[in-house]
Amino acid sequence: MSVEKKALVGIIMGSKSDLPVMQDAIDILKKLDVPFEVSIVSAHRTPERMFDYAKSAAERGLKVIVAGAGGAAHLPGMVASITHLPVIGVPVKSSNSIDGWDSVLSILQMPNGIPVATVALNAAKNAGILAAQILGTSSQEISDRILAYKEELRQAVETNARDVEATIF
Amino acid sequence: MSVEKKALVGIIMGSKSDLPVMQDAIDILKKLDVPFEVSIVSAHRTPERMFDYAKSAAERGLKVIVAGAGGAAHLPGMVASITHLPVIGVPVKSSNSIDGWDSVLSILQMPNGIPVATVALNAAKNAGILAAQILGTSSQEISDRILAYKEELRQAVETNARDVEATIF
Amino acid sequence: MSVEKKALVGIIMGSKSDLPVMQDAIDILKKLDVPFEVSIVSAHRTPERMFDYAKSAAERGLKVIVAGAGGAAHLPGMVASITHLPVIGVPVKSSNSIDGWDSVLSILQMPNGIPVATVALNAAKNAGILAAQILGTSSQEISDRILAYKEELRQAVETNARDVEATIF
Amino acid sequence: MSVEKKALVGIIMGSKSDLPVMQDAIDILKKLDVPFEVSIVSAHRTPERMFDYAKSAAERGLKVIVAGAGGAAHLPGMVASITHLPVIGVPVKSSNSIDGWDSVLSILQMPNGIPVATVALNAAKNAGILAAQILGTSSQEISDRILAYKEELRQAVETNARDVEATIF
Amino acid sequence: MSVEKKALVGIIMGSKSDLPVMQDAIDILKKLDVPFEVSIVSAHRTPERMFDYAKSAAERGLKVIVAGAGGAAHLPGMVASITHLPVIGVPVKSSNSIDGWDSVLSILQMPNGIPVATVALNAAKNAGILAAQILGTSSQEISDRILAYKEELRQAVETNARDVEATIF
Amino acid sequence: MSVEKKALVGIIMGSKSDLPVMQDAIDILKKLDVPFEVSIVSAHRTPERMFDYAKSAAERGLKVIVAGAGGAAHLPGMVASITHLPVIGVPVKSSNSIDGWDSVLSILQMPNGIPVATVALNAAKNAGILAAQILGTSSQEISDRILAYKEELRQAVETNARDVEATIF
Amino acid sequence: MSVEKKALVGIIMGSKSDLPVMQDAIDILKKLDVPFEVSIVSAHRTPERMFDYAKSAAERGLKVIVAGAGGAAHLPGMVASITHLPVIGVPVKSSNSIDGWDSVLSILQMPNGIPVATVALNAAKNAGILAAQILGTSSQEISDRILAYKEELRQAVETNARDVEATIF
Amino acid sequence: MSVEKKALVGIIMGSKSDLPVMQDAIDILKKLDVPFEVSIVSAHRTPERMFDYAKSAAERGLKVIVAGAGGAAHLPGMVASITHLPVIGVPVKSSNSIDGWDSVLSILQMPNGIPVATVALNAAKNAGILAAQILGTSSQEISDRILAYKEELRQAVETNARDVEATIF
Repeated sequence: MSVEKKALVGIIMGSKSDLPVMQDAIDILKKLDVPFEVSIVSAHRTPERMFDYAKSAAERGLKVIVAGAGGAAHLPGMVASITHLPVIGVPVKSSNSIDGWDSVLSILQMPNGIPVATVALNAAKNAGILAAQILGTSSQEISDRILAYKEELRQAVETNARDVEATIF
Repeated sequence: MSVEKKALVGIIMGSKSDLPVMQDAIDILKKLDVPFEVSIVSAHRTPERMFDYAKSAAERGLKVIVAGAGGAAHLPGMVASITHLPVIGVPVKSSNSIDGWDSVLSILQMPNGIPVATVALNAAKNAGILAAQILGTSSQEISDRILAYKEELRQAVETNARDVEATIF
Repeated sequence: MSVEKKALVGIIMGSKSDLPVMQDAIDILKKLDVPFEVSIVSAHRTPERMFDYAKSAAERGLKVIVAGAGGAAHLPGMVASITHLPVIGVPVKSSNSIDGWDSVLSILQMPNGIPVATVALNAAKNAGILAAQILGTSSQEISDRILAYKEELRQAVETNARDVEATIF
Repeated sequence: MSVEKKALVGIIMGSKSDLPVMQDAIDILKKLDVPFEVSIVSAHRTPERMFDYAKSAAERGLKVIVAGAGGAAHLPGMVASITHLPVIGVPVKSSNSIDGWDSVLSILQMPNGIPVATVALNAAKNAGILAAQILGTSSQEISDRILAYKEELRQAVETNARDVEATIF
Repeated sequence: MSVEKKALVGIIMGSKSDLPVMQDAIDILKKLDVPFEVSIVSAHRTPERMFDYAKSAAERGLKVIVAGAGGAAHLPGMVASITHLPVIGVPVKSSNSIDGWDSVLSILQMPNGIPVATVALNAAKNAGILAAQILGTSSQEISDRILAYKEELRQAVETNARDVEATIF
Repeated sequence: MSVEKKALVGIIMGSKSDLPVMQDAIDILKKLDVPFEVSIVSAHRTPERMFDYAKSAAERGLKVIVAGAGGAAHLPGMVASITHLPVIGVPVKSSNSIDGWDSVLSILQMPNGIPVATVALNAAKNAGILAAQILGTSSQEISDRILAYKEELRQAVETNARDVEATIF
Repeated sequence: MSVEKKALVGIIMGSKSDLPVMQDAIDILKKLDVPFEVSIVSAHRTPERMFDYAKSAAERGLKVIVAGAGGAAHLPGMVASITHLPVIGVPVKSSNSIDGWDSVLSILQMPNGIPVATVALNAAKNAGILAAQILGTSSQEISDRILAYKEELRQAVETNARDVEATIF
Repeated sequence: MSVEKKALVGIIMGSKSDLPVMQDAIDILKKLDVPFEVSIVSAHRTPERMFDYAKSAAERGLKVIVAGAGGAAHLPGMVASITHLPVIGVPVKSSNSIDGWDSVLSILQMPNGIPVATVALNAAKNAGILAAQILGTSSQEISDRILAYKEELRQAVETNARDVEATIF
């Protein structure tokens, strides 16, 4: 458990080696002040733990789950099959992945009935933002923080643009 | 406007030719009794209309946007860049698409800061379910309907399973 | 249950729509006189049924599992995560698959520790033969039937070859 | 603004991190003595800036726009949707790109009605040459410089050829 | 020669079988009232004809060349290597093409120095529009016709949008 | 054996179902008056027959082997490993092929030391022409027939070109 | 021969350069106490050695063959064509491989009748585990060791999970 | 000119940067004692030089041409269109290539009538061997050297195999 407030977002990943990628989800949720928890849950090496995690997620107060995995990435889809909460999938480009295609397709191409909200390869930051946006549909506070964050993004580009425009090439 | 209750989900598509695919989102939202609206908004042929739609979406009471497009599919990502609402992208396998890869990659691979919740190729039904799940994070009623829907899916498989198990091959 | 002898091979598939493809596994196992059972088990729509199936497989006397699924095909890998029996995965080219790549990669690219013996796209016949070969490692009878089958294959080619060689082009 | 003469080519990119790639467009336009301006315009983080840029481009005297972007690269296509000027798109292989395929397909596969003149992955130099060729359709001077540049290319190959032919392998 | 006014755009294709695809370029140029000529020039079966065509194009008054080809599509790139005019390449999905990837990559991925302005797979209409946009950089008339065409596209979407919005789903 | 003269080219294929594709090699060799033989040799179902065929090819007077196969296409490469004759591989897009990629890659990507001269997907005609070109390196007659054939190709394009140029579009 | 007990698994590879990848199969079989032998057998450079190896495998007491190869990887499929033992194929991402796709497809996409049990790219460890699972179908001892190994995998994840859960992010 | 004997094989490449890859063709032809010449011929930067080279190749005594190129690699195909000699194409994975796919497809997928004998990505050594095999169809000497070379390959594997078999793992 990583914050004192009751976690609303559960961040899970299939392996500890996914943590450097998934850290971006942690960082952006902290920045947006959204309470979260982090754990490791392997669909393939701890299937029962995965079942228990997904089964109890809603009861424990989670509203959204962010799940990252690589290769034949079954964690996001399996969690989505067990819980009725929205599940955001982060395809991780792991070391033996075939250029990330396996991670992307095994998360994205879920069958009818069981969606996974898939973000770009390694895009854990976007997964965190999307989780906040989902919570923002019923929280004005979180919604305002997202608006402020988007304004920051805008200003950073404008600053860079002024720099480039002032350059004598 | 397609229902009398105030729409919570905005379903848009880049072209009328996407309607047969996007109909699945309409049908499942009706089944789950989630009020929605439907329109056509082309990022490329009506960029100002797209801007206005995205800019006004939250004010008009929408909570989630489902956007379907094919080829170099910019609609979901551009709407996500303008609104702070969660945007669900449906890659449509249009007639001149390169096997759907263009639709998938140009919706999925959004840069840091601007997520699109991407579902499988042509999976408008899953986009509708995901929209309901997002609303379900703050509505017990919708959440219950999703649970009931998942139970239906389960039972349909069990029925088919019994049929197959009873078959003499 | 499809034969009177105790089933040694469990054939499962994620959806009834996979049956036309998976029928080839059934037919070749009948031809090779290997007892089998057939059922439908969806990782995504019936996760608990999938758990129970995989958990009890060895106890029920199964020696090998053949699992077919399409799209983000999690069934073979999840069953392999729960049972210690060898699992053969058949990537099915389902209707919304992206040319079969999703089915192939989400079955093949399993992480270290949990193999799935993957066969070619739609190659349920080869899955059946492989199941027989596995049983043949401890059954001279089955092994002999595989040898006879390979001889049949050889003779069919030789016959065709003679026909072609006799053709005046 | 990078030159004193009124800019005819507007070079824009989605992020400052694209500048090392886009520098090649700058360099070749300087070499061909075609006046240009450079800026950063993000379709996703500054959609209004992008709108204003594209809307005012023709009035400000630009004749051609060169737009570089990576991942789900919407900048070239969105600018093309707003302006009637020819837009040249440079797919940039950014860090999280899936081998550049996302950049290529989301720029190339524009729908009927809104073309983007796409060049090779990272080929900003070719984008600059193409911009000059377009201006050369109504400027004998620029056209002559392109001819001279092509002659330089030819001579460089001939020199290398003579070196290789003189080598004793 | 297909119109009485002196052709400004040369439309060529590698094989008569490309004509159904390339017809879209013809139709849009007629609509935009841009004079053009049409011929068949095969890089592989008539290399000398290709040379002569490209060598004489500028002298004959052509300003832009639109070249369509499929498979290992060398026509656009080879013409671009010989002439200094801008060349627009249309990747054609021919019968033995590997899903169009060969056509796209062998036109798009030109080396530094020799650009081809590539449009989407089979997008001859966009090639025609791009040719008109290029001519529009020095012709107010053509530029105005493109603006009017874009307005038509916009209105068609708005009409469809009103239809869909009026539908009771 | 299909002609009375001693066969110089051996045409083989992995399965009788490849014959419709491989017929193009037969037809062009007849047209070019190059003596050939045709047979079916399956690397996978008749490995010993394949060994014998490849081992005896040179002794029987064959100068070139044309081998077509689909899927995991091992025939051309295995024959090339056994004989020292040049082997031309035709990737066949068979029914369960993944869009032909498997056939292409398993023929093309041979390791250092054992080349296979690979032609385009399904391009048995080109395999036949290449076989004739190889024989033409030591036969002026065959070489002349190839020159005549290339002239035919040229004239057919010129005829089509004249037709298209005469068309009023 | 690498162990004193009679080898049950034959590990072969197409080149000595594959040994670093294939070492994982060796290590896991040692850990699971399954007797094995290791050799180099090149389908392309030593076709006769390959024939002899495959032909004699069953007689020499082998029960399963694990074959690794890269590029146009014919070794697993050719061995499977000659022996009736189950053959496990390991696609190796060799230096000139096209991102591993060639290795994967030329092992996986075997024709009907001749299966190869394919594991993930470079996944020699999984090939070893699968070999043990196959032997475990008739050996309680090996089966028990696999169960113990899976328990180890589970515990390692649980330990990592506790670490991550205890982290203050 | 690199050897005193009249060159039988012409080795050309599109750019000096291709020389490190193409050196393998040079080395193996020297080893097999086949006289050759080497030059640089760019289809795109020196189209007339390319024409002259291809047109005069047969007259100058060349029997086979080996052409290497990367990206949109038109050199092998264009040379094949002009000469009637067999042309061997080497797809080079150049720096801006999309993983080599562009080089492979733009060389391999030649239209009917104009074959290019394509070898694996970067496989210049195999191109050299294939050139020798082609010459070997009418030269017993060269043919004998190829046989000897194949025997060397065999022995190298056998030596490595003995080493590995003697290793205690």
